Amino acid sequence: MPGMKKIIECVPNFSEGRDLEKIDKIVSAFRGKNGVKLLDYQRDEDHNRLVVTVAGDPDALKTALYEAFRMAIDLIDMRRHKGQHPRIGAVDVVPFIPIKNVSMPDTIDISKRVAQHVAETFDLPVFLYEASATRPERCDLANVRKGQFEKMADKLKQPEWEPDFGPKKIHPTAGVTAIGARMPLVAFNVNLDTDNLFIANDIATKVRHVSGGLRYCKGIGVELKEKGLVQVSMNMTDYTKTALYRSFELVKMEARRYGVNVIGSEIIGLVPMAALIDTAVYYMGIENFSIEQVLETRIME
Amino acid sequence: MPGMKKIIECVPNFSEGRDLEKIDKIVSAFRGKNGVKLLDYQRDEDHNRLVVTVAGDPDALKTALYEAFRMAIDLIDMRRHKGQHPRIGAVDVVPFIPIKNVSMPDTIDISKRVAQHVAETFDLPVFLYEASATRPERCDLANVRKGQFEKMADKLKQPEWEPDFGPKKIHPTAGVTAIGARMPLVAFNVNLDTDNLFIANDIATKVRHVSGGLRYCKGIGVELKEKGLVQVSMNMTDYTKTALYRSFELVKMEARRYGVNVIGSEIIGLVPMAALIDTAVYYMGIENFSIEQVLETRIME
Repeated sequence: MPGMKKIIECVPNFSEGRDLEKIDKIVSAFRGKNGVKLLDYQRDEDHNRLVVTVAGDPDALKTALYEAFRMAIDLIDMRRHKGQHPRIGAVDVVPFIPIKNVSMPDTIDISKRVAQHVAETFDLPVFLYEASATRPERCDLANVRKGQFEKMADKLKQPEWEPDFGPKKIHPTAGVTAIGARMPLVAFNVNLDTDNLFIANDIATKVRHVSGGLRYCKGIGVELKEKGLVQVSMNMTDYTKTALYRSFELVKMEARRYGVNVIGSEIIGLVPMAALIDTAVYYMGIENFSIEQVLETRIME
Repeated sequence: MPGMKKIIECVPNFSEGRDLEKIDKIVSAFRGKNGVKLLDYQRDEDHNRLVVTVAGDPDALKTALYEAFRMAIDLIDMRRHKGQHPRIGAVDVVPFIPIKNVSMPDTIDISKRVAQHVAETFDLPVFLYEASATRPERCDLANVRKGQFEKMADKLKQPEWEPDFGPKKIHPTAGVTAIGARMPLVAFNVNLDTDNLFIANDIATKVRHVSGGLRYCKGIGVELKEKGLVQVSMNMTDYTKTALYRSFELVKMEARRYGVNVIGSEIIGLVPMAALIDTAVYYMGIENFSIEQVLETRIME
């Protein structure tokens, strides 16, 4: 709708998690920019990786992102990069996420414009992934990343791995970048009153999509040694279609087979307001509720 | 905290619900003002009353409110006002509500400054009510309004009804105003699968504060003739202390005595995000959850 403020989120991952000076230069591209809000950044020394979370107006975000691309491509040499996390380029992956007054088709469109722009500006091959993917096998980022930076030169020669934008050969120091649109992820864990990892894994198998469970749910069993219990650790990949409460109730239901109880849950990191409101609406059976009734959404507009 | 944007809400009630031109002049005091957001306004012909909902920066809100006071006092003559709703003045009542980065003591302070300012500017007697009340019997607005405009001249002569600010006699055309601070109200109704109003009333009696129930809950039984059922209609007066889910579960628990089921609920009008998130956190037992994990709160800051 015209006049309504659009907000998208962007979570660029950069292949530098150790050199604080370089990290600061990359992050500073998102600082003090009108219309851009730096929400978080985390560096990991073992992964040798920087994950930045920003949100804001799509155009303002694009401008800041291009500055970060230039910084990262100037500062990072993938030929000398080592780290535990799979990676294919200096700017490894850039997901765009619709937050407010932006549809998924809009977000896909934004991701493609950014992909084209950075490919042309930096002579960088770009793969579109997730909801922006142009071939089904490119939806899954793990497929795109397979072979990592070291094997990308060869991979690009295969006709099925021709990049969506940019040259058919890797950028010598910056490699390749994956860009796409996806829904917000919610990291949602459900704790069981047992220390039997087999049970958590078995429940995860039943709840997650890949092995017969809910469409937008990934999951594994995890041991929490300090607490002496296990959890079903889930990634909810589209809470608008697979609600948090549905996976929660399904875990509870499957736990009953073992005489095991759900004793709590946790949400790691950020969660969109609507994912929790949806849960409240379900448990109290609130009829005809509209997100517009939430006071804060009126103030934000 | 310094630098964090403060937001209060204000819901002034004006004694004019029929003359659209006058209504528009009053409402326009809140339009197009920097830092002030007009969230809603509702006029009621039978009540002959206008309820405006605005939110924003406390100082900007004050300035707009003073303009609305001047308008209403110029335009409304209480000597000729008729309507079904109890009322004591042209600006009948002005509640202030803390929303973001503002405490209840801050809000009480704001309400008192506004009360003093309008009393002096317009030579208007003002009663402080609710959380701002200076005597226990003034907490309840119904007590303050008792006698309505027509009996206010006499009421002000009683020593126990000396106004908190302004002269000890009514403003000839604008009467008296009540100003105070309160928590956001949530109008929360729970529907039962029976058409027996006695049951809804009995449950309301058990759940509401006044007759032995939850501290910040008001409630009555209501018949929904079209739907052929009854509901427990509640006003939650402080959701931070009496949670929505607690009154919901209590209604369910009491309904069991009659073999009656809760079949749904409804929230009328606006509700603070935290009231629903609290509910989701309860039902899924989310541990260590912070409101700062809600994506939208980060973007709003």
